Amino acid sequence: MGSLPRTLELFYDVLSPYSWLGFEVLCRYQHIWNVKLQLRPSLLGGIMKDSGNLPPQIPRKLQYLRSDLQLLRQHFQVPMQFPKDFSEIVRKGSVSAMRFVTATNMERPEMLTNVSRELWMRAWSRAAEKAGMSAEDARALLEKISTPQVKNQLRETTEAACKYGAFGLPIVVAHIDGKTHMLFGSDHMELLAHLLGEKWMGPAPPALNARL
Amino acid sequence: MGSLPRTLELFYDVLSPYSWLGFEVLCRYQHIWNVKLQLRPSLLGGIMKDSGNLPPQIPRKLQYLRSDLQLLRQHFQVPMQFPKDFSEIVRKGSVSAMRFVTATNMERPEMLTNVSRELWMRAWSRAAEKAGMSAEDARALLEKISTPQVKNQLRETTEAACKYGAFGLPIVVAHIDGKTHMLFGSDHMELLAHLLGEKWMGPAPPALNARL
Repeated sequence: MGSLPRTLELFYDVLSPYSWLGFEVLCRYQHIWNVKLQLRPSLLGGIMKDSGNLPPQIPRKLQYLRSDLQLLRQHFQVPMQFPKDFSEIVRKGSVSAMRFVTATNMERPEMLTNVSRELWMRAWSRAAEKAGMSAEDARALLEKISTPQVKNQLRETTEAACKYGAFGLPIVVAHIDGKTHMLFGSDHMELLAHLLGEKWMGPAPPALNARL
Repeated sequence: MGSLPRTLELFYDVLSPYSWLGFEVLCRYQHIWNVKLQLRPSLLGGIMKDSGNLPPQIPRKLQYLRSDLQLLRQHFQVPMQFPKDFSEIVRKGSVSAMRFVTATNMERPEMLTNVSRELWMRAWSRAAEKAGMSAEDARALLEKISTPQVKNQLRETTEAACKYGAFGLPIVVAHIDGKTHMLFGSDHMELLAHLLGEKWMGPAPPALNARL
């Protein structure tokens, strides 16, 4: 099914662990489903503010988040660990990190996937690995993050997510047969498969060669 | 896999459309997976208050809820329609309805599934159907809902959900191999299958005779 290529926009922030889950699932399925995946680095803080939404401040939600991620880690096969300094990470926010991701997308788009994953690894996994970018390249991109071009690009992408109705991240905006569907959260991927008319094989599909 | 019967407690409120989705999925899978399903009618308002959680008041969340349910309706094959008087329904709350469900559970437990479904149907579907209870039986149960026994039972079940860490409904409390897992939301059923070591076949499994 689905002979026409469909576009999926994934809006994400490396501050958000559920964004990481959504990111990895779509990176896996882009080679199985007939879709074009467009990565859209954006700012969670900007979306929360614009929509009037609040982070999960109540103790029971935070407690649940911690045990939920522990279970999803195995099921999704993503090596996340809940960081000890979580409240400090949230307080600091992700403006610099997401400007760095945005600069990567503008200057070195072929590195976008690895750089995004590396930033999640740094915050959400002890076993951090390198993204395969040279120190020189990283320095050049770091210099870009305070340029108006990069700042504007991140702001525009965040505004685009808000226009699609986002109140948090990740969201997937699926463009299928002239219709646009906005799906919130990493747990709506099976519904996405249903909308695409593609087969859902769980968050870690058996093999990429199912289609080859 | 899973030769020992495992117990799943489903805490739900007929005010919550996602509770309905979770309820129907578990009603379908209880005959496929090797599990004992225990229905636990409880009060969403009590859980929100006790945990300090807030209903989805921001406009974008409400807008998303509406379109999300529209999509999930097809995928889950549950005939829900977003009610026109949603804010009125939320304002009135579900104390009487959930006391009625509790009284049913205490006096006519064999009717619990149908009565619960009928109450969701009434609020969330235009095509309301009868639960197959006689007018006389219904009248007798209605008389029970203001008794201390029924009030206390609903309060106790709601407190049990809170002790498991609930901040909303539905939650599934899975008792597997001496461990207890609390899962929030109708979208965690695939993770539940993973924890049980059972096969997930989507929210509407092809046939109940897969095991027969």
